[in-house]
Amino acid sequence: MSFPVIGVVGGGQLARMMAPAATALGVRLRVLAEGGDVSATTAAECVVGDYRDLETLRDFAASVDVVTFDHEHVPAEHLRALEAAGVNLQPGPDALQHAQDKLLMRQACDRLGLPNPAWAAVTTVDELIGFARRVEFPVVLKTPRGGYDGKGVRVVASVEDAEDCRDWFGLGFEALLVEDLVEFSRELSAQVARTPSGTTASYPVVESIQTDGICDVVTAPAPGIDPRTAQAAEEAAVTLAEGLGVTGMLAVELFETPGIGPGFMVNELAMRPHNSGHWTMDGAVTGQFEQHVRAVLDLPLGATDTLGAYTVMKNYLGGANEDLYSAFPAAMAAHPEAKIHAYGKSVRPGRKIGHVNVVAPLAEDLAAAREAAESAAAIIRDGHRAQNEPRTAAADDLQEQS
Amino acid sequence: MSFPVIGVVGGGQLARMMAPAATALGVRLRVLAEGGDVSATTAAECVVGDYRDLETLRDFAASVDVVTFDHEHVPAEHLRALEAAGVNLQPGPDALQHAQDKLLMRQACDRLGLPNPAWAAVTTVDELIGFARRVEFPVVLKTPRGGYDGKGVRVVASVEDAEDCRDWFGLGFEALLVEDLVEFSRELSAQVARTPSGTTASYPVVESIQTDGICDVVTAPAPGIDPRTAQAAEEAAVTLAEGLGVTGMLAVELFETPGIGPGFMVNELAMRPHNSGHWTMDGAVTGQFEQHVRAVLDLPLGATDTLGAYTVMKNYLGGANEDLYSAFPAAMAAHPEAKIHAYGKSVRPGRKIGHVNVVAPLAEDLAAAREAAESAAAIIRDGHRAQNEPRTAAADDLQEQS
Repeated sequence: MSFPVIGVVGGGQLARMMAPAATALGVRLRVLAEGGDVSATTAAECVVGDYRDLETLRDFAASVDVVTFDHEHVPAEHLRALEAAGVNLQPGPDALQHAQDKLLMRQACDRLGLPNPAWAAVTTVDELIGFARRVEFPVVLKTPRGGYDGKGVRVVASVEDAEDCRDWFGLGFEALLVEDLVEFSRELSAQVARTPSGTTASYPVVESIQTDGICDVVTAPAPGIDPRTAQAAEEAAVTLAEGLGVTGMLAVELFETPGIGPGFMVNELAMRPHNSGHWTMDGAVTGQFEQHVRAVLDLPLGATDTLGAYTVMKNYLGGANEDLYSAFPAAMAAHPEAKIHAYGKSVRPGRKIGHVNVVAPLAEDLAAAREAAESAAAIIRDGHRAQNEPRTAAADDLQEQS
Repeated sequence: MSFPVIGVVGGGQLARMMAPAATALGVRLRVLAEGGDVSATTAAECVVGDYRDLETLRDFAASVDVVTFDHEHVPAEHLRALEAAGVNLQPGPDALQHAQDKLLMRQACDRLGLPNPAWAAVTTVDELIGFARRVEFPVVLKTPRGGYDGKGVRVVASVEDAEDCRDWFGLGFEALLVEDLVEFSRELSAQVARTPSGTTASYPVVESIQTDGICDVVTAPAPGIDPRTAQAAEEAAVTLAEGLGVTGMLAVELFETPGIGPGFMVNELAMRPHNSGHWTMDGAVTGQFEQHVRAVLDLPLGATDTLGAYTVMKNYLGGANEDLYSAFPAAMAAHPEAKIHAYGKSVRPGRKIGHVNVVAPLAEDLAAAREAAESAAAIIRDGHRAQNEPRTAAADDLQEQS
């Protein structure tokens, strides 16, 4: 049989969650993992190796039919070398550089006519202050590469803040990105899949609530969104996917700016399955991991219809409870409709270790779905139910154990 | 972390499909596989060993927290020995013997007051003929153990047929099972999950169309079923699960007999995820494989609500197309809503190698869902679209390739 093997560089939870989708389709997944006990370890065939080493990447690529990514941290020059050697990279470096480098991303959005906040490439504190004075403080300073989940990002509210950032200019980047701090009503995310053949499939635009710079709660579709904004955002994601030659899943994180431009501005890009799309695993006909698998194999894309009026996704981060499984009985007893996902990661404070999806069959079920998702996640994170919640026998048992 | 390891005896597609459910919950799956390239091989951690060897079973059991099953063929005496040694078997031998031995199953149904066809244990051709004359030919002769998918089952329509079965009485069974050939309107299946703690969760009763004794098309819920029959069948499954002490998934295959008894008779039992429940993977909040994982771990069971008005499951068996993957582009292009499942098995005529699920969001979508599931399965099985179907560019490409 000619079933292909997909190689994934990086063994985090995104690689892990590609495994069930690949298994369902009879496709094998092979992961280049950072170590022997990463998230993907127990879910897929893993080889341990350093993605920063070109020879390791070459060997890995030779063992699979297509190479895709769990993260954007593979050095751009290695991607170019692999491409030159004929490796089937999805997405390829021409596309991926725009997810690796925020300055390139801003330039591309300008070129494609998509709404950017005011931005500049700055090389000195003086240039930073000059930009900030032009657009008015506060602004946001970002390293063009290497940042994620709020890292490599700093709000600069004053000249003193800017002076405080002096050492950022010695980090080795040609320039840093500075952007106007956008006043937005909320954050949105638009996801689209694109195949090497050029077909695309869009998911509904979602609301993404960030806490401390980390995705926290996603509601799909974004409740109350202006339909014109939703359509324009969906189109912007397609424009980016096509304009940059993205293959696989693309997530476009957006600021909702009612009454300004098309109602949103582009924040960031990710060219892989994305936290803002985890809801699709239980809330859409084709989940984003299956869609990514289809896309990188250049298979026709699956339907993106939703399975309920809304789906709510709640992340749980490492918290008080170090033994996640011990809280499963209470969480499951309280919320039989909750889809609990655990990433097989050890618990460290603030680390993304799992999420919960709850589908709201009807629009009026949204509040209950959100409560259920948040409650189930809290039980797992904390090891017990919140004080003000109704108690069940299962919860009582759990309290006695802990 | 205290996440448990589930051991599955047998590496067929049922073990394979438990893997994604276990991965989602952070639970590890370890499979005792019949060989190095069974269905579960690329989907889960496998150790190769003979399930008919007690020492192999003991070693395997020692490496996991709970043992469950892909099939019912583990020798009963080995299950007793493992139980005596304190192994956590779910289901245990007291329950499992009723899925292993059809005579015990018939006795249990009688004892529990559930509707059996007329049946007898027979040890000679004369007894077989005597029974058949009493209830009138035709009758069905079954080996009590070892049969599945139509094997070990024979319709006996005449005295000559009965004489023809003489060698069945030399197969080593104490007695054979003979049953009245039930005149039924269709086959149904009732599935329920039960935990060691005694909680149960029922799925809607489905219609199961068998072809040549093999499950072919399942529609969930069974269209047009008398609600009293559906309720009685659901209750019968719970009665069996509780009465026999079943843990994990139980499938009760039924004959629908309108106007006779509660509207059905019990046909067979399976104590594991079952082909008639594959629709739940895409059509219910909690799929049967996740439910089995939860049940054998004694976790609270998940919600069994459906995600659409109907879900249609169509099996595809080994056919003309030996390179299944080569037909995926045409199948996916024609049916983006189809959920394609492939079991990683080599193609042999008549072998179960995958299935397709299609959810009908509304009741009026049922016919279209059935057509889509059957068409997608046929494309994969045959390697091309049927002659009378509308053609697409993708299908044309495929025809040219093949």
